[in-house]
Amino acid sequence: TRRSLTVTENAYAALEKRFRRYSALSGASGLLGWDQETMMPSGGAEARAEQLATLDVLQHELLSAPAVSEELARAEADSADLDPMQQANLREMRRVHTNETVAPADLVEARSRAVSACVVAWRDARAQDDFSAVSGKLATVLELTREYGAVKSEKLGCGLYDALIDSYEPGGTMAWIDPVFARLKAELPGLMEKILERQAAGPAPLSPEGPFPAALQKQLGERVMRALGFDFAHGRLDESAHPFTGGIPDDVRITTRYSEKDFTSALMGVIHETGHALYERGLPVEWRNQPVGSSRGMVMHESQSLLMEMQACRAPAFYRFLAPLASEVLDAGGLAMTPENLNRIGHRVARGLIRVDADEVTYPLHVMLRYDLEKALLSGDLPLKDLPGAWRDGLKASLGVAPEDDRDGCLQDIHWYHGSFGYFPTYTLGALAAAQLFKAAHDALPDLDERIAAGDFTTLLGWLVENVHSVGSAKTTDEIISAATGAPLSADAFLNHLNTRYL
Amino acid sequence: TRRSLTVTENAYAALEKRFRRYSALSGASGLLGWDQETMMPSGGAEARAEQLATLDVLQHELLSAPAVSEELARAEADSADLDPMQQANLREMRRVHTNETVAPADLVEARSRAVSACVVAWRDARAQDDFSAVSGKLATVLELTREYGAVKSEKLGCGLYDALIDSYEPGGTMAWIDPVFARLKAELPGLMEKILERQAAGPAPLSPEGPFPAALQKQLGERVMRALGFDFAHGRLDESAHPFTGGIPDDVRITTRYSEKDFTSALMGVIHETGHALYERGLPVEWRNQPVGSSRGMVMHESQSLLMEMQACRAPAFYRFLAPLASEVLDAGGLAMTPENLNRIGHRVARGLIRVDADEVTYPLHVMLRYDLEKALLSGDLPLKDLPGAWRDGLKASLGVAPEDDRDGCLQDIHWYHGSFGYFPTYTLGALAAAQLFKAAHDALPDLDERIAAGDFTTLLGWLVENVHSVGSAKTTDEIISAATGAPLSADAFLNHLNTRYL
Repeated sequence: TRRSLTVTENAYAALEKRFRRYSALSGASGLLGWDQETMMPSGGAEARAEQLATLDVLQHELLSAPAVSEELARAEADSADLDPMQQANLREMRRVHTNETVAPADLVEARSRAVSACVVAWRDARAQDDFSAVSGKLATVLELTREYGAVKSEKLGCGLYDALIDSYEPGGTMAWIDPVFARLKAELPGLMEKILERQAAGPAPLSPEGPFPAALQKQLGERVMRALGFDFAHGRLDESAHPFTGGIPDDVRITTRYSEKDFTSALMGVIHETGHALYERGLPVEWRNQPVGSSRGMVMHESQSLLMEMQACRAPAFYRFLAPLASEVLDAGGLAMTPENLNRIGHRVARGLIRVDADEVTYPLHVMLRYDLEKALLSGDLPLKDLPGAWRDGLKASLGVAPEDDRDGCLQDIHWYHGSFGYFPTYTLGALAAAQLFKAAHDALPDLDERIAAGDFTTLLGWLVENVHSVGSAKTTDEIISAATGAPLSADAFLNHLNTRYL
Repeated sequence: TRRSLTVTENAYAALEKRFRRYSALSGASGLLGWDQETMMPSGGAEARAEQLATLDVLQHELLSAPAVSEELARAEADSADLDPMQQANLREMRRVHTNETVAPADLVEARSRAVSACVVAWRDARAQDDFSAVSGKLATVLELTREYGAVKSEKLGCGLYDALIDSYEPGGTMAWIDPVFARLKAELPGLMEKILERQAAGPAPLSPEGPFPAALQKQLGERVMRALGFDFAHGRLDESAHPFTGGIPDDVRITTRYSEKDFTSALMGVIHETGHALYERGLPVEWRNQPVGSSRGMVMHESQSLLMEMQACRAPAFYRFLAPLASEVLDAGGLAMTPENLNRIGHRVARGLIRVDADEVTYPLHVMLRYDLEKALLSGDLPLKDLPGAWRDGLKASLGVAPEDDRDGCLQDIHWYHGSFGYFPTYTLGALAAAQLFKAAHDALPDLDERIAAGDFTTLLGWLVENVHSVGSAKTTDEIISAATGAPLSADAFLNHLNTRYL
């Protein structure tokens, strides 16, 4: 009827206006966060924390007003009157609203305080290799995370761990992850052994001789970013202690850190963040500032960074483009700077202790260990005091090595101490999605290797924008992957990729 | 009575909480504005404007809620229960509240839109030297500014122009300004003639030979900033098209722009902004985030920048410190880099057309012309079409030169096109205050010249913090000046200073 249509439209329009404001506040927070990591002098920390907390409160107040629940209910009651993108936007509004309002304020505050204290204690504990110095605070974070997960799982009607995954990967579930990880667990250790064996029979890579000044490395990074399609009228490259992608789609800010001894590490980091940045930049322009115009989730985001870093820019073709460019910009040469040697460096596989330093073959083994351990911690099957031993045993079983201390063991990652349970699996799901999407792009673009060798990423980026970026959050992760590749997410493409590249 | 005390305290405490949030939003806006001028790629402009507008709306909503008026009235009714700083804070809260709420929302919005359009048109008009291309938009801005001034003057019970001055210099009035400016008008032109005559009889300064790379100039600027007392744990130096001081007291961010031909221009700009920055940094720590903890107004602010730029760092003693430092950092030498020659450069006086390039002797003549013209524009005595001619005639009468075009005439400053009427006099009042305060500091610190010659500004900064900075907004501008110097603001010290330095 005409009357209810108007009511729906009004409710929906009011929501769009609210979420537009919500998005502006998110963007402001994001910029303050970027500045904190890149520009802010140390003495500004306290005031910045208060600014960020104030914006957080205002964002929360914006969505927790009773009027929002009413508007959502009214718009949903007659959502058939909306067009498909509006319907998708309404669905995402509901999701954001649930996440923002599901937990009682005192639980949110208690958890936020516990996390702050735990992260501070973790830095010391890690420096001193003393897990017992942080395990009490971690126990509190774990307990409050369980409480949060319980509240959310009741609201969503799902399991506790699934409710936590949902915060990073909307709709992600153990039922989706487990079969994929089972396949990897069955095949990856054997594959790794074969790869290591073959690698041992070949020549070791030469190390390019530094030092490579940070200013030149930055020039090289910017040249490669431009080639990949990064638009410096809509973004920046800066330095920070931990590389990240921040900002908003029209002003994406990536960071890296430079080691003067080794230019490849910062460069591959820049390429990784550029993948994230291109995704943000490619989101649907007409839905800026609305939930449906946002990136889909951590799996999709990680797939875009890893597609650039691990698929496109570790392809042998890429090193034919990179070697002369890097030699010119860095004023370096010799046998270490040939495409063949850079390729050898980029494809080096090793049984390492540290996840962030791991190659693409062993990385999933690190992630799956954390996945198993965090589920056991949450369920109570694994008492916190047994975590260090379980970590050692687990890594030994899958990778064949074990850390001698906890600093390189269960103290190495910030995630749990930060309350981020359910985050780890998205790294590996992203790697699988990257392989599957790159395979599809490769099939669709027959001259892709030659283009990559020429530093021409236009057709690859065009394919990604069309099939992934411009979808925003209008579809689920698996819908996007299925539409783009013809099949739901699986480990097939990833395992094939490793076989092809390394064996 | 005990009961009313509690009510007052509650109302006051509620206001402190609100203004704390208001301050956090101001700080966030300030950082977004700083980033816009220093870091932001051009493509981020639209989204940034939306973020800033959203924060503006939230700040307005925070203070325009009916509860705030009630709390203010309740706290004021029994303000005797508050301690003196709380009383001063309450008075400043009322002032901020009045400024934020005095004009109806549609007038604020109309004026804001008119200003945006006029500033855009002004840039083109100036580039094309075509006043008629912007005069229509300026007429609209002028009309809406009159309306705004009328509403505010009614609320404050003062004249229209005084109501406009108040936005930049709280409590500033024509009755305060006119006698001071009358004295300057009577004495300055004759003084200028004598100075120019004497200058013509002496040797002209040599120009140091560049180019001076921006990176070295930045090093020099930072060295001088440190000497002045700038703490880089609480601030930064960056580049922007128009130098400014931004940020918050615990994270003050100043900017400059470099010309490779002339290092003195960026350096004196850095010193000027450092003066602003030290004022912000010296504001009372225990009143951070409250109105009484803020800087007093534009006169006091400009006095602090000009005290550093024109008084302390154009003193002959300063060049004894600067000359060897600049020679070392810039790797320059010769006769042009001696203290005597740098002193000659710093004290050069000229009849110029452009206010921002003017020396300290002629600067007030530029300002007083604008003061007279803007009063006449507001009252209607001067029709807009006659502004270009009135400008030429006025400058000719006071300085003895006149621009051949409007680009260097009534189109040179952004202020009026930006709706800033009542701002100009604060520049010269600040210069007078700087001279008066520096004289008092000099009297109180007998070894100040030797310390400045040694690059030691600690006692000067200590005196400024004690007598000016740490007062915040607890007193009026004239109360601060009287307490610090023993007399209200006048032109005496400034005219004495010019006589001593130049004759």
